[in-house]
Amino acid sequence: MIILGIDPGTTRIGYALIEKNSDESVDLIIYGCLEIKSKKQTDRLKIISDSTGDLILKHHPEILSIEKIFFTKNVKTALTVSEARGVIINCANLMSLEVMEFTPLEVKTAVTGYGRAEKYQVQKMVKHILKLEKMPKSDDAADAIAIALTACYTNPKLKN
Amino acid sequence: MIILGIDPGTTRIGYALIEKNSDESVDLIIYGCLEIKSKKQTDRLKIISDSTGDLILKHHPEILSIEKIFFTKNVKTALTVSEARGVIINCANLMSLEVMEFTPLEVKTAVTGYGRAEKYQVQKMVKHILKLEKMPKSDDAADAIAIALTACYTNPKLKN
Repeated sequence: MIILGIDPGTTRIGYALIEKNSDESVDLIIYGCLEIKSKKQTDRLKIISDSTGDLILKHHPEILSIEKIFFTKNVKTALTVSEARGVIINCANLMSLEVMEFTPLEVKTAVTGYGRAEKYQVQKMVKHILKLEKMPKSDDAADAIAIALTACYTNPKLKN
Repeated sequence: MIILGIDPGTTRIGYALIEKNSDESVDLIIYGCLEIKSKKQTDRLKIISDSTGDLILKHHPEILSIEKIFFTKNVKTALTVSEARGVIINCANLMSLEVMEFTPLEVKTAVTGYGRAEKYQVQKMVKHILKLEKMPKSDDAADAIAIALTACYTNPKLKN
């Protein structure tokens, strides 16, 4: 079963596709960070929609795992990231993916066993679980991998 | 030219379709309030996407006029309404509508000439402009009509 993990944003969106195999092993298919240069939010949302659609069409994931927004320091940013989340969830709905959402606390707990883990600890576990030679350069992509892994460890369908 | 006006929300979404005629008159085609009973936000977003798509397919508007979010009293609500906005804008993008966004201040100014107009004053002007016998019962639908009218008065393409 293939899972699309997304760390939502408005100018940088981390994404990762992983496959949970029948022997419980997990393979990393692809990961990256979509960098959006457009300054107009409507145009950004269009790029996010097109890119999400392309990833789904190309890799046929059955689950979208996406991070919930928890921060409220910068409300304006939180509102634009929420619009991006709406677009991404809409794409998943239109293409019949199951949508799973996780808070950063849930992601940290799922991947490291500790909800207050530091970013580098999460990345170290991701590297270990997926047997990567090195971590992705982009923090957003690394976060997206952790979010995808969280769906693996949380969805009963994905547990053997 | 047909304009779809939307007052976004998560459980109640006001909508209105108006037509600007070549003689500058404006006709109200249809209006209403989509009430969403589902408690799960992912399901709500799906209903919003389907309903927006249906309205566009049925009435072929060329412009989506949608209200911007300005309130930050309840951040949690603002975040879920932003997700709904993202879904609605995404539908408009996918179906090649031009997207116009207005703050409540801009809507009040466009319809009444006064940015601090009371709700009843906006509704009175909407009733007058569209020669309605009575105002819609739903405030959300009335707001959606005012938002659609704002695009009429603001878009250079729609001015004669």
